[in-house]
Amino acid sequence: MDHFQEVYARAKEWTREAGRNLRDSLGQQLHVDYKTSEADLVTEKDREIEQFFIDKIKNAYPHHRIIGEEGMSAEAESDPMDEIVWLIDPIDGTTSFVHQRENFAISVAVYENGQPKIGVIYDPIKDELFHALHGQGAYLNETKLKPLSDTPVKHSLIGINSLWLVPNDYCDHTKFHPLIQDLRGTRIIGSAALEMAAVACGRLNGFICLRLSPWDYAAGLVILKEVEAVTTSIDGSPVRMFEASSIFTGNRTLHEEILTNYLRAGAGL
Amino acid sequence: MDHFQEVYARAKEWTREAGRNLRDSLGQQLHVDYKTSEADLVTEKDREIEQFFIDKIKNAYPHHRIIGEEGMSAEAESDPMDEIVWLIDPIDGTTSFVHQRENFAISVAVYENGQPKIGVIYDPIKDELFHALHGQGAYLNETKLKPLSDTPVKHSLIGINSLWLVPNDYCDHTKFHPLIQDLRGTRIIGSAALEMAAVACGRLNGFICLRLSPWDYAAGLVILKEVEAVTTSIDGSPVRMFEASSIFTGNRTLHEEILTNYLRAGAGL
Repeated sequence: MDHFQEVYARAKEWTREAGRNLRDSLGQQLHVDYKTSEADLVTEKDREIEQFFIDKIKNAYPHHRIIGEEGMSAEAESDPMDEIVWLIDPIDGTTSFVHQRENFAISVAVYENGQPKIGVIYDPIKDELFHALHGQGAYLNETKLKPLSDTPVKHSLIGINSLWLVPNDYCDHTKFHPLIQDLRGTRIIGSAALEMAAVACGRLNGFICLRLSPWDYAAGLVILKEVEAVTTSIDGSPVRMFEASSIFTGNRTLHEEILTNYLRAGAGL
Repeated sequence: MDHFQEVYARAKEWTREAGRNLRDSLGQQLHVDYKTSEADLVTEKDREIEQFFIDKIKNAYPHHRIIGEEGMSAEAESDPMDEIVWLIDPIDGTTSFVHQRENFAISVAVYENGQPKIGVIYDPIKDELFHALHGQGAYLNETKLKPLSDTPVKHSLIGINSLWLVPNDYCDHTKFHPLIQDLRGTRIIGSAALEMAAVACGRLNGFICLRLSPWDYAAGLVILKEVEAVTTSIDGSPVRMFEASSIFTGNRTLHEEILTNYLRAGAGL
């Protein structure tokens, strides 16, 4: 079997196993800590799931590098552009996990020399596994996802957090106001990985986020590429892998219309 | 059996039956029409489900009045404050129904002389029936819902549509900006009925909407009252039943903090 075919099979298997663990923990009391602020939560489950992946990967692929949200395997001496790297968000949407016991996901990606290879996003509550191996199409469980349909702004539903519509450190928030007025609607699931997965399967037509970490968007990028989504940073330039970045994705028509008529109109972001 | 106990049992039974119909229709092609704008969708399923309720109610309770979103049983000659009235939204979240095949609900309420009696909100995709008979507690399926926990703004997640955060006809949108900055987070499910149900079961701590029709909020109000939510219009005044209204609901602490420190601070809405 091709190396990445095998890695892909294991990534899916481990992600489902970790998801079962999370699902089984929902009745338990969670210990919640804060990271950068009282809106930035982490639980012992985030750490436990990340450690689970680290143990599995180190055992099966000792030469692979791991970048995780909880930072438990950071190794500063190597360059991720020259290696096989796993990017892991053990719980994307920890606030949803804590408050809602739904709307969270495990996000796992594998890149080789900076190129996308494998993306896996698992919603353990809905038992929906979104997954893709580069060049072989994207799937929701066993169903192959179709290339995205083109939609104009006025017929589109996009994911965009309220934070970007009010004064913030990352953008001129008023830039988005005409877009919000013209769209059919907006949604906030509370997990960037699930919002990217929602674009991939057509539940949303686009997704905009002004700041995501590599482990938040890495798996989504692999999956979105397989359904012919256009994904860039918010100014239309390529996403710089392994760096914190804005993410702006959608079908080709919608991406072009938003970029031209809203984001680049006037003074720019 | 008490009259309203019987009506409650039938309301739940009919709502589940209508929900099965909707669930079974998800594989079908939908014919979509626009109402007031290209963001205001209606399908043949909205009309079919409303007609289903009208037939059931007229047969079982010919003296009851019916107010439905699709307006198929409007009778202007009577006063809903003097009667037993059903308020029906056959599909709350039609945009979600069309785009996502999830995140929509059937909302059914019964009021007597303007007083809340019965509220039923059904999410047919998740098979979650939220229901309440006035004075007897609220339930999610067979599980009794607990009175809401008090939460401060900084530890709260609320439902609020992006429309109210950008220039609009119903409010000074900048009024909400400090609130958005201070909250733990916001969510948009895409169905006001499901957002009120989410408050009732603790998945959200509050919900704000600047304009809802009576059939959108009627069932939610009955259910929220049973879990001791505080529900008012956006200025803190009582909701005027049977009229289009803003809805502002949450646990007592959160409602008070938002009203005092955000909505009444400065110039008011």
